[in-house]
Amino acid sequence: MDILEIARRRKTVREFKSEKICLEDIIYCIKVAKEAPSGMNSQPWKFLVITDEEKKEEIRKLCEEKEKNFHRKVKGELKEWLKEKRISWKKPFLQNSPAIVIVLSSKRAPYFTQSTWLAIGYFLLALEEKGLATVTYTPPNTEEIRECMGISDDYKIEVIMPVGYSNDKKDKENRKSLEEIFYLNEWKAIVD
Amino acid sequence: MDILEIARRRKTVREFKSEKICLEDIIYCIKVAKEAPSGMNSQPWKFLVITDEEKKEEIRKLCEEKEKNFHRKVKGELKEWLKEKRISWKKPFLQNSPAIVIVLSSKRAPYFTQSTWLAIGYFLLALEEKGLATVTYTPPNTEEIRECMGISDDYKIEVIMPVGYSNDKKDKENRKSLEEIFYLNEWKAIVD
Repeated sequence: MDILEIARRRKTVREFKSEKICLEDIIYCIKVAKEAPSGMNSQPWKFLVITDEEKKEEIRKLCEEKEKNFHRKVKGELKEWLKEKRISWKKPFLQNSPAIVIVLSSKRAPYFTQSTWLAIGYFLLALEEKGLATVTYTPPNTEEIRECMGISDDYKIEVIMPVGYSNDKKDKENRKSLEEIFYLNEWKAIVD
Repeated sequence: MDILEIARRRKTVREFKSEKICLEDIIYCIKVAKEAPSGMNSQPWKFLVITDEEKKEEIRKLCEEKEKNFHRKVKGELKEWLKEKRISWKKPFLQNSPAIVIVLSSKRAPYFTQSTWLAIGYFLLALEEKGLATVTYTPPNTEEIRECMGISDDYKIEVIMPVGYSNDKKDKENRKSLEEIFYLNEWKAIVD
């Protein structure tokens, strides 16, 4: 299978089977991600994998508490989108997925956010290759979770990814056509 | 070849053969990148491919002008790193690579930088699969280049990637060991 097929097959998944996953598969994906380039080759990423049930529950509760506030206040386009996608403040996937992967970046490194998300791109394709699914969940209270996990404030939580086998029946979200995002030698007025 | 092999083989390249490349190969990589997930599925990325010789020269000159200032002022760790890697203000790859790919992000989209760099991760692996090389060059004067290309200020230049066949004899930069970046259930004090 080529990378285009893997990329096309991959979709965001928020529901997981209770089936255990092999830690070696996640380690494979981290090995892929750590090959990514980074600003000054600083490799600012850390991958914290949580399989401990109590810790997953704790993280779910912390996130849901903040999500409740967020969902109460959210307005406009984002509110509509969340409603349409049936995304609520509840984040059961943080607890009922077999593992969650917290990706952190070193705030002192140049281009730490860019480099780390590039590596997350590598990670996602590797997960799909292994038949594993995820959602790139960006919690509203990264600082609180960082503290709760005893992580030094030199690091920033970029994303939390629940990982497991998909039990999500939803189709992949549509993607724009090539024509909408590709330009050759000339920028054109864009109607988004 | 699996994704780990592709990721391991890929290295940053700053010297290119004059050999032409097939535009279809770049389009393949954009097709891969546009499958990436993004905040609210907004797909904030645009890929502007420049093969026009005059435009490449213009971009090279604009970048080098700002790089000269930057290199004059740079200090400390970064200065040492640039010297060690023999990276100067000169950016010939912006002109003598057969194509440059400018990736832009829509500044109004949620998590536009994160989403776009994730897609750049996809793009890099696809390039490697096609035997093509690049460097993720982040110019110091993105606004100036954007204006020169007539691009609306709703968009931000995230990266400029010269693309071609490698003529770079340098080895791949070392990567940290798995032990340095992977943690299971527990954060540990890190010695960087």
